[in-house]
Parts: sequence; structure tokens; C-alpha cells
Amino acid sequence: MSTIPIDDPADPRIAAYAAMRERDIVGREGRFIVEGEVTLRVLLSGAARFTPESLLLSHERAAPLSDVLAALPGSVPVYTASKAVMSAIAGFPIHRGVMAVGLRGAEIPLALPPAPAPVLVVGLVGLTNHDNVGGLFRNAAAFGADGVILDRATCDPLYRKAIRVSAGAALIVPFVRLEAEAMLHFAEANDLVPLAFSPRGEHVLADLEAPSRAMLLLGSEGPGLSPDMMARARTVRIPMASGFDSLNVATAGALALHHLAMRARDNPHPLSRP
Amino acid sequence: MSTIPIDDPADPRIAAYAAMRERDIVGREGRFIVEGEVTLRVLLSGAARFTPESLLLSHERAAPLSDVLAALPGSVPVYTASKAVMSAIAGFPIHRGVMAVGLRGAEIPLALPPAPAPVLVVGLVGLTNHDNVGGLFRNAAAFGADGVILDRATCDPLYRKAIRVSAGAALIVPFVRLEAEAMLHFAEANDLVPLAFSPRGEHVLADLEAPSRAMLLLGSEGPGLSPDMMARARTVRIPMASGFDSLNVATAGALALHHLAMRARDNPHPLSRP
Repeated sequence: MSTIPIDDPADPRIAAYAAMRERDIVGREGRFIVEGEVTLRVLLSGAARFTPESLLLSHERAAPLSDVLAALPGSVPVYTASKAVMSAIAGFPIHRGVMAVGLRGAEIPLALPPAPAPVLVVGLVGLTNHDNVGGLFRNAAAFGADGVILDRATCDPLYRKAIRVSAGAALIVPFVRLEAEAMLHFAEANDLVPLAFSPRGEHVLADLEAPSRAMLLLGSEGPGLSPDMMARARTVRIPMASGFDSLNVATAGALALHHLAMRARDNPHPLSRP
Repeated sequence: MSTIPIDDPADPRIAAYAAMRERDIVGREGRFIVEGEVTLRVLLSGAARFTPESLLLSHERAAPLSDVLAALPGSVPVYTASKAVMSAIAGFPIHRGVMAVGLRGAEIPLALPPAPAPVLVVGLVGLTNHDNVGGLFRNAAAFGADGVILDRATCDPLYRKAIRVSAGAALIVPFVRLEAEAMLHFAEANDLVPLAFSPRGEHVLADLEAPSRAMLLLGSEGPGLSPDMMARARTVRIPMASGFDSLNVATAGALALHHLAMRARDNPHPLSRP
């Protein structure tokens, strides 16, 4: 595995890493940025759904990563630079010295096993905070969700910060874009029971007889899910202490995913995946 | 309620708001900063354990807050300024236009009801991330924990960002500082069963017969709790999907707090508080 040293921040070969914060906003034409060793290792693992286009490492970080670099296809260039040059490329101080560009590819539809196999899908509506979306992907991966559906208002799981907060889960858990109405149609077509989480939900999460095929619906912390979505789903609430009924939406998602995962364990279906 | 207009960023009356990021690091000599309407309302509510020293609002934010300003003791000055002047005071762009300085006061020992009344305390060991500490306070408040104990390495819940992430819970939930050894002594002296959370824990959270008086022990995501602490506690794990056993520590805390709160609901003790 040979590396390609970069001395000039304006070198066209590393143009995809330039002006990083500005590009976070305007987008990267089918590319995304991975930062840090944890997420890079996910991108280069068999679990990731995406392929790397190139890597950019500080000189001293290449050696500790030699195990994954050795397994990298020869077609993926590995650039190395000083942290000063990396910072000049990115436009802000780079401390970790580990970056990669990944390729989005075409959206892959969610492929779910047919009923009665158990399925757990998360539907996100109007989540505009990258920390929350990243956190939800991390929790979805931790509890083995089959996929995430996002409406148009929900922010991009492949946004730089969302990938980092997800600990790389945004590269693993399948996701597609569908509007709220289409989410409910998807649930119906795939025999998924829609469970809508809201402080005004009818059922208490801890008492919920979890369906073996479910779609967890989560809205933003302010407006929440629409009355129409609530009316067409089984509504669930998480009881909280009086006077402080405030839970982060990614945390609420973790509680829901954990409950359903534990119920699935306690009531294994004969077709459950091992 | 009269407000005091400020035009000069160097006005000594608002010196406590100056050079905000630098003071985040060096500390504020018994003071802390609250930002944003949600947390300000908590500070000015009866639920907060701390008193405000002053408020600094942008001109346009004073009117919508007139309800809480009217209830403020006359001894607490309310300064108003343009956002440009506020930004010059703080040293970075101020968007929300709502700030306050609170007074720490002396540390108040945790006062717990005697056994057999139910008690839930959280012990944090080595948590150096303000988002995690803020998130844990938010979750502790949401599930009615009686208090939080922090070791010296754990960061300050009254750090500006920790208060914000906690949605103000850091101003409500009682906390004290104790080192790991003293935490375990505190548990013993107060009849609290120490529950140590770790990926290598013996018991599965969902199966845990929750003690009515418990201390949840949480360590940092990397090193976790010490072998000595683990040996002296009931150890608990949260099962995760194979290949991605990564959960944020504040999220793990939420799962634990929710489980114990629900068990307390299902097994109400005659002395339970209403």
C-alpha cells in the first residue's frame, strides 16, 4: 500500500476535501466526508453500504491504520499530508488527521424480509438537527433496526457531523427518503404496525405488546408528529417525572428500540434471524 | 419591572458576561451562565436550586419574557442590549439574545429519604464530555432521579454547554462531588444497591429485578468503570446487535433510569412519594 504525499493545499487531487464547512452546506455532488478513525474503520469494513473514493491522512496516522490500508483496493488513493496542510485544505484546524471521501451511489430501496419474519424500521419526520439524526442511527444500529425512513425535512444522515455522531452507523443502517404519507403506505404494504411516539400517546411504552413487525415513528421535539399520522398509528408515550417531561428524540428512540428488541428476544419468532 | 439598557460592551455592570469562551475554561468564581429561554425559565422557576444574579436580554426578547421578569425580585437587575452589543460583550455572535448569570452557592449535601423509601441516584465516573453530562442530567430529571454524584474527573454540570444540553435539568437535579471510593461508601451508608453498567455486566437490564433504592454507576465510553467498582456492585449490561455494540453513555443512562422508574411504578412501595 503506497501513499501519495500532498504538499500543496490547492492540489486538484484533494479538491474534494477543500472548503469543508462551505461544502457541508451546499452539498458534495454524490460524495460525503468521513472523519476520525472509528468512522473510517466502519467505512472500510464489510458492514458499510458505501465505497470510499479516497483517503487523506496526516503522516503520523498512516502507520497505525496499516491494517485497513493493506486491505484497500488499489484503485482508492491514500493521500498523506501534514496537519498544517490538511488544515489549509479543509479551512479549519484539523486535529484528528483522519479523513475520507465516500461515494453515495444510487439510493437502494429497503429490502425487508416478508412477514411473518420480525422487522423493525424507524421513520423520522421533520428532524432538522444533525446530532439527533446521528444519534438515532447509532441507536438503530445498536438495537439491530432493519432500516430508517426519512422525510424530506429530516437532515442528511451522510452530513459530516451526523456520520461522526452516529459512530459510523449512518454508513451501515439502510435508509431511504419517503414523505409521511408514503411512509404509512410503506408500513401497510410491508405489514409493519406504525407506532407513533408522542407525549400524548395512548399506550405506555413499558406496557406495549410489541408487534413483531413495527415502524417506529418519531417527530421533532417541538411540533412532533402530525395529527393525521397520530390518528393512523398506535400511539405510544414514555412516562416522565412531572414537571420535567423533556426527553431528547434520539433518547426516546433508544428507549423504544430497546423495548422492541427485548420483546423480540422474549418472544422469538420461528423465522427470527439468528 | 424596569430594565437597564447597556450600550457599552465594556460597561462594568455586565462584566460577568464578558469573554465568555475564555471564562468557560478558566471558571467564573461561583457563577455560571444560562443561555436561551428554556433554561432561563428553569432558572427562574421554583424548581431551580440556584438563584440568578442578573439577566442580559436583547431588546426584543424582554417583552416575551415579561411574565417571568414580573416575578423576579427587584434585587436582580435585568440588562438589555442590542444583539450587536451582546455579541461584543460575549466575544462571539449571540443569536438567541437570552442570557443570565446564576450563583452557585455552597454545595448542598444530597438529602435522601431514609429506607425503605425508594431512591434513585446516578453516579458518574470519568465523564469528560459536556454533552454527555448535560444529557445525563436531562435524563435524570425526566425519570425523577433524586440526585447525581460526580467524581472529580467528570465535568461540571454548570458548564455553559452542559446546562444548555440538559434543557435546564442541571439547575434542578441535586448533585455533589465524591470520588469513586466515597460514592460506594455513600451507597452503603444510604442503603443504595450499586448497579454498575458495563458491556461486560452480568445481568441483562431488561431482566433486572430493580432494587427500590439504587445507585446507577456509569463510566466513560472508553475505559468504563474500574474493576474494583465492578467487583463491588451488581453489574448490568444492555444487549446490543452483534457488530455494533456502541451506545452513548447518556443514552445508556436513559435506558437504565427508564427501566428502574417503570419497575418502581409496577412495584409501588407504601412509602413511595406520590
